[in-house]
Amino acid sequence: MTKLALIRHGQSAWNLENRFTGWWDADLTAQGEAEAKASGLLLAATGADFRYAFTSVQTRAIRTLWLALTEMKRAWIPVEKDWHLNERHYGGLTGLDKAETAAKHGEEQVHVWRRSYDIPPPPLEVGSTWDLSTDPRYRGINIPDTESLKTTLDRVLPYFQERIAPKLKAGNDVLIAAHGNSLRALVKHLFHVPDETITGLEIPTGNPLLIELDAALKPISVKYLDAARAQKLPALP
Amino acid sequence: MTKLALIRHGQSAWNLENRFTGWWDADLTAQGEAEAKASGLLLAATGADFRYAFTSVQTRAIRTLWLALTEMKRAWIPVEKDWHLNERHYGGLTGLDKAETAAKHGEEQVHVWRRSYDIPPPPLEVGSTWDLSTDPRYRGINIPDTESLKTTLDRVLPYFQERIAPKLKAGNDVLIAAHGNSLRALVKHLFHVPDETITGLEIPTGNPLLIELDAALKPISVKYLDAARAQKLPALP
Repeated sequence: MTKLALIRHGQSAWNLENRFTGWWDADLTAQGEAEAKASGLLLAATGADFRYAFTSVQTRAIRTLWLALTEMKRAWIPVEKDWHLNERHYGGLTGLDKAETAAKHGEEQVHVWRRSYDIPPPPLEVGSTWDLSTDPRYRGINIPDTESLKTTLDRVLPYFQERIAPKLKAGNDVLIAAHGNSLRALVKHLFHVPDETITGLEIPTGNPLLIELDAALKPISVKYLDAARAQKLPALP
Repeated sequence: MTKLALIRHGQSAWNLENRFTGWWDADLTAQGEAEAKASGLLLAATGADFRYAFTSVQTRAIRTLWLALTEMKRAWIPVEKDWHLNERHYGGLTGLDKAETAAKHGEEQVHVWRRSYDIPPPPLEVGSTWDLSTDPRYRGINIPDTESLKTTLDRVLPYFQERIAPKLKAGNDVLIAAHGNSLRALVKHLFHVPDETITGLEIPTGNPLLIELDAALKPISVKYLDAARAQKLPALP
């Protein structure tokens, strides 16, 4: 039996401004940093022996992990950063605030893009202010120009299988610090959540989800570490 | 031509208390954190394209690196942590303050242990308060019970050759955040500093040493990034 903890990064500058962020590298606010430290304290209290950590290449998830590991006195564990754990790419919505988006595309259309499983927003235009093709962190990577939750899962899952699952199967407790949608994709996979209900699942910030897995990586228990602020849990498969 | 930057961690809780630290995991003080951020700002200003970072498994070096990378907006580069970059192990002196040590062993003997190249202090006693054999970060590792600068170099150098040199030879700018003696060992190797003078070389904290290397990793230039606080530089080989 091994433990997998999922940490969602806390508030970023763009959460605060209510803008679609996706792959844009908005950093944590002071509140986001405090949420990361709170996650670390909750994780330390579990007594789990976390041996490996994984995160995206986005600063807000990486710094969430670093702040949590510092509280856990586990700064020394190996950390792998990979774009496959990035947030869903919001395409042409990137950079827009939610009111602007509704004015431009209509409330209902925005709701579809946010809450459907497989309908991506329109692609980000080449040369847009939010175009990341010259960002050195993505050198050699074919950056998507938009993603649905489904296409997010299509890149999260192979990475999980190839890099993370072997560590869990070898008996190591593992920590993943990532984003609302990359974590949602993982939860969908582990708990067999149907396409129709997965977008309703919201992992809170500052409150890690702790999953115990059997040798086949089937969840046998699941809980939020801060029970007082728990959201609805996925049902065990 | 590639660039190698060496960052020495800033003040730790035990520096402040004037105690021999070695492998003990004393964390940074607030001043140490400020020195790390200052290093990051100096490194960012070089415009170098740092693609890989290496550090020890000791919290003060890791957090120095994290704070510097945050200032550099390079949190996303891969970081490898390895005990081969740890501080020199101070053996039986670990945990003693410098006045206690002088009272116990005599000023002159302490000077020999601190400033000779190849004379290690007495070994740390098994079961000592400072014994790290049950620390999970050293699981499976044969921890030394004392080290001279020479035996420190004997473990730093193979690690540098195997893990760091290939990245430099492939044309990547590299960052190493480590400790007074593991960095001294690297400088001794790169600049062919004689045994007799190497212990007099002191890399300052909060002021990275930037070395330009040719394709054979021979230094072709070297400077401290904050020229106003520069120490004596090693001579080019």
